[in-house]
Amino acid sequence: MSPVTVSGALRRLAAEGLVTTRPGAGAFRAETRPHGTPAGDTSWQEIALSADPAADAVPRSVDAADILVTLAAPPPGVIELNGGYLHPALQPERALAAALARAGRRPGAWERPPVEGLAELRAWFAREIGGVAPDRVLVTGGGQPALTGALRALAAPGAPVLVESPTYPGMLAAARAFGLRPVPVPVDAEGVRTDLLAEAFRATGARVFVCQPLFQNPTTAVLGAGRRREVVRIAREAGAFVVEDDFARRIAHEDAGELPPTLVSGDPDGVVVHVTSLTKATSPSLRVGAIAARGPVLDRLRAIQIVDSFFVPRPLQEAALELVGSPAWPRHLRTVAAALRTRREALLGALAGALPELPVPEAAPGGFHVWQRLPDGTDERALAAAALRAGVAVAPGRHYYPAEPPAPRLRLSFVSPADTGEITEGVRRLRTALDSLV
Amino acid sequence: MSPVTVSGALRRLAAEGLVTTRPGAGAFRAETRPHGTPAGDTSWQEIALSADPAADAVPRSVDAADILVTLAAPPPGVIELNGGYLHPALQPERALAAALARAGRRPGAWERPPVEGLAELRAWFAREIGGVAPDRVLVTGGGQPALTGALRALAAPGAPVLVESPTYPGMLAAARAFGLRPVPVPVDAEGVRTDLLAEAFRATGARVFVCQPLFQNPTTAVLGAGRRREVVRIAREAGAFVVEDDFARRIAHEDAGELPPTLVSGDPDGVVVHVTSLTKATSPSLRVGAIAARGPVLDRLRAIQIVDSFFVPRPLQEAALELVGSPAWPRHLRTVAAALRTRREALLGALAGALPELPVPEAAPGGFHVWQRLPDGTDERALAAAALRAGVAVAPGRHYYPAEPPAPRLRLSFVSPADTGEITEGVRRLRTALDSLV
Repeated sequence: MSPVTVSGALRRLAAEGLVTTRPGAGAFRAETRPHGTPAGDTSWQEIALSADPAADAVPRSVDAADILVTLAAPPPGVIELNGGYLHPALQPERALAAALARAGRRPGAWERPPVEGLAELRAWFAREIGGVAPDRVLVTGGGQPALTGALRALAAPGAPVLVESPTYPGMLAAARAFGLRPVPVPVDAEGVRTDLLAEAFRATGARVFVCQPLFQNPTTAVLGAGRRREVVRIAREAGAFVVEDDFARRIAHEDAGELPPTLVSGDPDGVVVHVTSLTKATSPSLRVGAIAARGPVLDRLRAIQIVDSFFVPRPLQEAALELVGSPAWPRHLRTVAAALRTRREALLGALAGALPELPVPEAAPGGFHVWQRLPDGTDERALAAAALRAGVAVAPGRHYYPAEPPAPRLRLSFVSPADTGEITEGVRRLRTALDSLV
Repeated sequence: MSPVTVSGALRRLAAEGLVTTRPGAGAFRAETRPHGTPAGDTSWQEIALSADPAADAVPRSVDAADILVTLAAPPPGVIELNGGYLHPALQPERALAAALARAGRRPGAWERPPVEGLAELRAWFAREIGGVAPDRVLVTGGGQPALTGALRALAAPGAPVLVESPTYPGMLAAARAFGLRPVPVPVDAEGVRTDLLAEAFRATGARVFVCQPLFQNPTTAVLGAGRRREVVRIAREAGAFVVEDDFARRIAHEDAGELPPTLVSGDPDGVVVHVTSLTKATSPSLRVGAIAARGPVLDRLRAIQIVDSFFVPRPLQEAALELVGSPAWPRHLRTVAAALRTRREALLGALAGALPELPVPEAAPGGFHVWQRLPDGTDERALAAAALRAGVAVAPGRHYYPAEPPAPRLRLSFVSPADTGEITEGVRRLRTALDSLV
């Protein structure tokens, strides 16, 4: 090669940053990493992912494990007594497919929707929630983004947030992911202990309390009539918000009777931020829900949703409208209500039959599961592992507690198995697992 | 009424929390708000929404205004020279409708997908990105959640984040919403000034730099060949990540020639976190995108997505797969590439004809817009307001700067008008607006 060719090649390599030329010394391969570090070494990330300029830094790692317990698919052959969604057999699959196909052909179905959601869908949610105007409703991508958005809107990193104890692990994970400190307020058979709530606000200075007044997850408790107003009054006196996670309204069972109204419907002062979702009563993939609120907080909730994800895909919103406006919708809700009752009773019957030494679990005519007390000293993790070996997946109770659990528990779902036969067989396998521990 | 009826009614009202009884004093209407506060007064929220336990608190309000500039629909009759999505005439509407209908009927289409996304779709994105294995790809709900997730994963509240100046306002808004401090690194015709990048890392201790190497928004600059490797090397030396926002790869124009590969494809050390999306080349509502990364950071990105939103709705993922696997897809991309070239040339021609006194704007054969310098001293806000009165919406340049802008600018989009006729008419109205300011 001629010197001209070589220097031309070097110039080009230098321009591409592949070599560095040092006048008087020569041309050297350019380094992209500190001297001596081998290529493909990502261990530097561990420092970068935890380095933090603030002295009082909150932990930065994010733990999704407790959500994955109920979200991940189980191994083949394992009966799922830990799921959080309707089994496909209970989902309105044909109505959903039809709704989606019609939605995709609606004029403008692929246009950007209003960032707050389709007007027709906001109006539908407003009617469902009761006592709120459509312009106070934001359409969200399901319940989880609504909850995380509400937590971020209402509390700053490092701030305390009052939560029911036990409560939904996905909310705890979201709170912790934002650096919030969940502070437990115990729940009994009538829901959150309002006699402890005011003290919890005083002790922490918290500005938000997250509450599931209807068929609380996991205890299944319904907030007592006397406590409903107390919760709002105590929060208002503390200058704090109540996030009402109304996840279970559309999955009440046939024998539930009349449901209490939403907390937000009786709140003129903007204390309650209401969260609801279509997902639980339909499919995990119909990720459409809503937030309702009043006052300046609505602007912040809206801004957070825009900044995070712009808006909910319009075809999904159109499909939701098609579904809830179809004759199949009330029929589907009735079918689900009947099936949930049957399944709940099947699970309770199976537990009484196969595990008669255990106390009758907490179970209400709403929601997806029962809350099973275990004998003192039972190692939940060992039991869950033994259960998996026996072919049944269960959710250990400890994931539901913001702090140390007072007693061992399991949350047992009756919606994720294929049918009542699988429920009975799942409980039989749980018996095997319990026996294997002794 | 008998005393029995009255005391029965009082007992019931007390049980519902509507009255409080004080023995010896009587029954009183229960208060849910501090004494003297009228019902429906939400002003207490202003305190709650800003109260913060941390002394060095970051601002808590969230501002979505700069995103809404390009996201909100314009008033009727107004020509949109500020849009960020393909006009419906350029969207593959029929192919999208067909894909969605087929997706809804795919077996298991409404089941929960794997939280990382459908395997087939991850593999498709991996091939598109180049040099990454499918198991390093996460499917996201478009580019915006991917960007916000990456920012949260890589920086703690209060931390600095290096950004190009000017840059995409949606990224600035997301960074600020999480309490991050955007620190500008200037961009010139070859992209970010790498001679200033190392200094910016040193001065701030930042652990992340957000970069658009291809058709940068808004300058349209392509990162120079020599700088591509520099960016990764400098970040690696600083122990920092590079977020590669590769938003424009599928909206290169017919005359773009061969595109440089992605930064992530040549990065063995996990420095680059790559973000891409299908939205720009299709519809704002096909909210499907991807993140690709390597090392522990991938776990954090995955956990953040699960905690925030669980997963991307499966029917949308299936629809995306149907679309990109159909014969209509390459045809659509060619059609768009040709149309974008025609529209870009139409806008440049209209500007040269109607506004000859302005410098020729920055414009590259990729992206959706040109970056128009205005005469020194032009009041961008007054001009944008005058333009709206004249019937054309434009985006003031200042929204694109993390700090004070060095000169007045407009970002003018050629994709949101219906056709080239609207582009020409929009520029004519801009002429009217400019003249009205003098």
